Amino acid sequence: MREIIEKLRDFADARDWAKFHSPKNLAMALSVEAAEIVEHFQWLSQEQSYRLDPDKLAKVRDEIGDVFIYLTMLADKLGLDPLAAAFDKIKKNEKNYPASLVRGKSKKYKEY
Amino acid sequence: MREIIEKLRDFADARDWAKFHSPKNLAMALSVEAAEIVEHFQWLSQEQSYRLDPDKLAKVRDEIGDVFIYLTMLADKLGLDPLAAAFDKIKKNEKNYPASLVRGKSKKYKEY
Amino acid sequence: MREIIEKLRDFADARDWAKFHSPKNLAMALSVEAAEIVEHFQWLSQEQSYRLDPDKLAKVRDEIGDVFIYLTMLADKLGLDPLAAAFDKIKKNEKNYPASLVRGKSKKYKEY
Amino acid sequence: MREIIEKLRDFADARDWAKFHSPKNLAMALSVEAAEIVEHFQWLSQEQSYRLDPDKLAKVRDEIGDVFIYLTMLADKLGLDPLAAAFDKIKKNEKNYPASLVRGKSKKYKEY
Repeated sequence: MREIIEKLRDFADARDWAKFHSPKNLAMALSVEAAEIVEHFQWLSQEQSYRLDPDKLAKVRDEIGDVFIYLTMLADKLGLDPLAAAFDKIKKNEKNYPASLVRGKSKKYKEY
Repeated sequence: MREIIEKLRDFADARDWAKFHSPKNLAMALSVEAAEIVEHFQWLSQEQSYRLDPDKLAKVRDEIGDVFIYLTMLADKLGLDPLAAAFDKIKKNEKNYPASLVRGKSKKYKEY
Repeated sequence: MREIIEKLRDFADARDWAKFHSPKNLAMALSVEAAEIVEHFQWLSQEQSYRLDPDKLAKVRDEIGDVFIYLTMLADKLGLDPLAAAFDKIKKNEKNYPASLVRGKSKKYKEY
Repeated sequence: MREIIEKLRDFADARDWAKFHSPKNLAMALSVEAAEIVEHFQWLSQEQSYRLDPDKLAKVRDEIGDVFIYLTMLADKLGLDPLAAAFDKIKKNEKNYPASLVRGKSKKYKEY
């Protein structure tokens, strides 16, 4: 993570783009890139969504890269580590959704 | 990354939730979590978005964790490494947006 | 449409909320409300999505109302009529996706 | 509204596209189109977002048309009238956010 954060800072600095990168704007950009992933899946059945053709898979990979980039930039602007945030969230989820209670159910899921 | 992927697989397996986790559904969940980040910023000015109060920052951190989690799960289902995808996308961006040409401009930015 | 536009203007004026309602902010709010609709569908199968239980249907109806509200407010701020925009877009789509060529295919669909 | 609903049904029928139009899929498409609106605003200041150049305004108008289309199709599939849903939501909001209490504040706004 450290390496990619440095790379993203250098990339924005070299282009004088930091001025566009308020947390508000980065949050918007993040959601737009997430929607670009959704766009690839919107007319597929669940089954089809498991087996993308190589061309589509390459495009989805690019969009996943974009989401990762904006998520990391947003977290960095706010002084947060996205990987640590994810680990802490998993810990919370383990408490909130005990395997013994929610096994196989999607009900509780909606708050997940 | 390896560690969090394992953790997320175990978490889903223990709850028998893999059946809900088609790439299509995970893409949807990812975009919903991204929107939950946006929700915290929608009425703030750009300046305010840099200095969230501690309570709001903690909530945004949780949502950042959620986006990271779903992005990692989606990538894993598709056999992709999100961090590698991000590094490759940065390389592409360096070629497509040479610092000498786009310095300080947001114009080109819309395709970014 | 005229009636709802007036109602929404009065609602915002009475609360002195116009200052929060820049087109940028309304676009964000619109996307957040759209995601709240998605949230209700994310773990459902396509079949299940046709038959929501009454409680869930009422919640989705509320979110549909919210999307309609923000879409109308955004259009109004930009001096646009969303219904006229929709009719014009349908005309464009009829040209771009002639029934004789795209019948039963989702391929072309991705640009839709 | 009646007229556009008929038009959209005919459009989909003529292309045999109803099979792609589950509420789940339409919700996804709706959120993708909402994000395409956001994309036009993501790097703009709030001030800039009020005065789009004619080319950008025309593009935003198209996206607004798309959101209106998918919102109407989704509502129609669920047996709902989006305009009536909006009027009812405004009534709820008038109760939940009395002008006398929330005047000029964005605080309450986050649940809006």
